Amino acid sequence: MRSEFEFIQHIKKTFSLDRIGDDCAILPKDAETDMVVTADMLVDEIDFRLEWTTPEQLGWKVLAVSLSDIAAMGAEPRWSMLSIAVPQAIWSSDFLDRLYDGWFDLARQHNVELVGGDISKTSGKLVVDSMVGGEVPKRRAILRSTARPGDAIFVSGELGGAAAGLELLEDGLRLENELMNCQRDLVLRQLQPVPGLDVSGQLQSRHLASSMIDLSDGLSSDLAQICEQSRVGARIFADKLPLPSDMKQMHFSFDEKLNFALNGGEDFELLFTGSKEKILNAEIPEIHHIGDVTANVGIIELVRDGKTEILEASGFRHF
Amino acid sequence: MRSEFEFIQHIKKTFSLDRIGDDCAILPKDAETDMVVTADMLVDEIDFRLEWTTPEQLGWKVLAVSLSDIAAMGAEPRWSMLSIAVPQAIWSSDFLDRLYDGWFDLARQHNVELVGGDISKTSGKLVVDSMVGGEVPKRRAILRSTARPGDAIFVSGELGGAAAGLELLEDGLRLENELMNCQRDLVLRQLQPVPGLDVSGQLQSRHLASSMIDLSDGLSSDLAQICEQSRVGARIFADKLPLPSDMKQMHFSFDEKLNFALNGGEDFELLFTGSKEKILNAEIPEIHHIGDVTANVGIIELVRDGKTEILEASGFRHF
Repeated sequence: MRSEFEFIQHIKKTFSLDRIGDDCAILPKDAETDMVVTADMLVDEIDFRLEWTTPEQLGWKVLAVSLSDIAAMGAEPRWSMLSIAVPQAIWSSDFLDRLYDGWFDLARQHNVELVGGDISKTSGKLVVDSMVGGEVPKRRAILRSTARPGDAIFVSGELGGAAAGLELLEDGLRLENELMNCQRDLVLRQLQPVPGLDVSGQLQSRHLASSMIDLSDGLSSDLAQICEQSRVGARIFADKLPLPSDMKQMHFSFDEKLNFALNGGEDFELLFTGSKEKILNAEIPEIHHIGDVTANVGIIELVRDGKTEILEASGFRHF
Repeated sequence: MRSEFEFIQHIKKTFSLDRIGDDCAILPKDAETDMVVTADMLVDEIDFRLEWTTPEQLGWKVLAVSLSDIAAMGAEPRWSMLSIAVPQAIWSSDFLDRLYDGWFDLARQHNVELVGGDISKTSGKLVVDSMVGGEVPKRRAILRSTARPGDAIFVSGELGGAAAGLELLEDGLRLENELMNCQRDLVLRQLQPVPGLDVSGQLQSRHLASSMIDLSDGLSSDLAQICEQSRVGARIFADKLPLPSDMKQMHFSFDEKLNFALNGGEDFELLFTGSKEKILNAEIPEIHHIGDVTANVGIIELVRDGKTEILEASGFRHF
């Protein structure tokens, strides 16, 4: 059976869709500005679970996921639409009020205006579809397809925390119970991710990133997207991957932590390339050099303990 | 329990949302042009049924519903995003390919470009969320809030056909079986509506409409929206309502037909106001004068057989 990536490629090819393939589509706005738009659909029991998220966290996360796409283009968010398919039991409760409260908590931080959306009933699961529009200086959107051999590879923030948090939730830990601080932090990385708009803004204003993508599916998958679309390869170093300090205090083995960081997904950090020297000189807080772009097209090498292995893309897939 | 309209009003007020309340939100684009955006979410067993729609018809309809919103603003569509929550059984079939075929059949007629979207798995029902962006000359979007007492009220096309078609489907009639032509036409009005972009374009280019809305929920509801937002009333005439000729050949009583036309919804025709003389002189095909705007704020009068009754809004509601 075809994967979702294969299906999207098939639709793209069948109908000649040129604007699909980046974190956002780029559309002309005016002489100085391009518009970027993105859509993200989250489904109960697939992309979140009502049993372990609060409505406020869900409202926050559905916007955060789209803002992360806007950040990945080096753009700034402006407006949003939110469509929700609502089961009767949820309609009868204060769930939606609380969902909008959480949505607006994040929206206010980035001056995002809610301009529309839709509400439908469903006899199935809760579904939330988030659409965000943003702006970027003309022809300055940062693409996946423009990494060059010799560029350094960076990530913002830390990797694998959201996946570790998901595992804690699956193990039965809940925020409303007594948790260690490190557990609480990891669970919050899963439930309430912070989009990388600050780092993105600095990269954009100083023209530092040659390519960028957000880490939604997992480093191995998302780096493979950059490699494929830029026709390059990559070499990354296991000992350079920034694991959350919270994770270091816990029972996870190094292999588990490495797996979270490489394949876990949902960190919503930024993965970007560019001149190592220029980026390091910019002194952007919390960014980490993890490897380099190579000319070895389509191949991602992982260097661990002095040995090199080939890293296959194995992040999150719906299908 | 609050209705969906009450909930949207509540959210609008709580978070000071100025751009919500028309068929589309209006956003500035450049010196000559405004952008309009709209979102429509359709859910299996609520807004459509897989047992009686083909995938192609569903793809067509989800776009048609949004194009109808674009038409209601006097705008032209440009681009779209489509998000879909897909049950496993549908993923494993050719359903989605056929859905996109139907979507593109309509999109090509109006040069709408698919620029993005999302696909998620669901263990619940199929959900499709359609987002369309369009353009309109600066400050020329046609609103719901600008009808004036003395304006005439018009509709494009015929009313009640989609609701009659829905009743035929609920009675077990199917397009793949042998149907009378009139039955087939009514069922197609339900399954494959045609957005009013042609009429809308003529109204826009000749500056003829003082206000406009699309007929999605039903004439009584949608006219109430214009009356409420314009702070006016309306008087409409039962014998002026354009019932589909297909409906005349069938077993429906006049009361049933009138109910379909007033409260049925999903005709996706346009309801608009303006100067009776100017609009009639423009000789736009297939438009019908059905009544007049009054100063009787919030009251819709229905004149039938020389008697006047008050018409309450009773179109489709999810909640």
